[in-house]
Amino acid sequence: MSQAEATLPAGRDVVLGAALEAFFEQGYHGTSMRNIAARAGSAVSHAYYYFPSKSDLLRALILQVTADLLAALKVARAGAGPAPEAQLRAIVRAHVALHTERQAESFVGNTELRSLGEGDRAQAVALRDQVGALFRNVVSAGMDRDVFRCPHRDEAVLAIMTMCTSVATWYRADGPLPAEVIGERYAELALNMVGWQNN
Amino acid sequence: MSQAEATLPAGRDVVLGAALEAFFEQGYHGTSMRNIAARAGSAVSHAYYYFPSKSDLLRALILQVTADLLAALKVARAGAGPAPEAQLRAIVRAHVALHTERQAESFVGNTELRSLGEGDRAQAVALRDQVGALFRNVVSAGMDRDVFRCPHRDEAVLAIMTMCTSVATWYRADGPLPAEVIGERYAELALNMVGWQNN
Repeated sequence: MSQAEATLPAGRDVVLGAALEAFFEQGYHGTSMRNIAARAGSAVSHAYYYFPSKSDLLRALILQVTADLLAALKVARAGAGPAPEAQLRAIVRAHVALHTERQAESFVGNTELRSLGEGDRAQAVALRDQVGALFRNVVSAGMDRDVFRCPHRDEAVLAIMTMCTSVATWYRADGPLPAEVIGERYAELALNMVGWQNN
Repeated sequence: MSQAEATLPAGRDVVLGAALEAFFEQGYHGTSMRNIAARAGSAVSHAYYYFPSKSDLLRALILQVTADLLAALKVARAGAGPAPEAQLRAIVRAHVALHTERQAESFVGNTELRSLGEGDRAQAVALRDQVGALFRNVVSAGMDRDVFRCPHRDEAVLAIMTMCTSVATWYRADGPLPAEVIGERYAELALNMVGWQNN
């Protein structure tokens, strides 16, 4: 970094990244705007310029990762062709992939949703509901065609989403299994769970 | 409560209950011993008498709920007879039951494990590993007898434990399904996931 660059104030993304790091390590309530500014190497007033309050930072982090998840799932489904088993496999893999790539955001999103204000929480929950609806549509399509024999669709969908999400809590890039292999194994488990009739 | 009772200092359990409530609502890092004492209706010095530090409170909460989970699973397994499918059903139901009964402890245990000191965290992780080992034993027994055809045992066990644990994040006592029904449905999903050959 040149001297000139070093003296530029931290940009919006740097402040957001610093907030993510702080929320992940200290929790939302344990973090102050001062902590975030210090991590970003900027003045507190500068952090407030981009984000009028700490809750705006949490809101931005949670909505962004959820919107990106929804977009990734739509792309995965669209690319999988019409078969429900291929679609379920694709969305499980995409879900696991995002949660291995963006672990800290996923963790903060799941543990600090309670810390959002009511309106922001409703917005985040509405986005998550769209993720759930996408999974339900795929599972329902498989049930309609009798390729899935799933006794409890809604519970199965919730369980699949939960198991994919939880990868963010334990995945390590230097662990024994590459993220793609975990995604593939989880896809097989999900197909088992919905009672895929693969014979 | 009589006047005499009202003036007694809060007992250990009251302080622990107040800490749980505070950690659940504000996060561990967002809570001070002063907050906890205020919630318990006791002097700060009194809270320190039972728990020399805030981390002792977190440690006590996490170890207790994990030890109780392990004990409940052992009882459930022992009462289920020798068939692996009956044992898996029993431990999934017991796992879900504990997580609906002790939601706040479960949530704090899962979100604040990172906040424990290294030694305490190792102790908590060792207890959790015993929970995992119990599930693995049951699934392995079913695979050995060919009643379970499970492609990825370790991933399946982790996914089952995760889905049971996550019930604590959304279960409401006044929700549409009683806890027992959720436990029963999760047991069926778990049996699907391990490829139970029920015919």
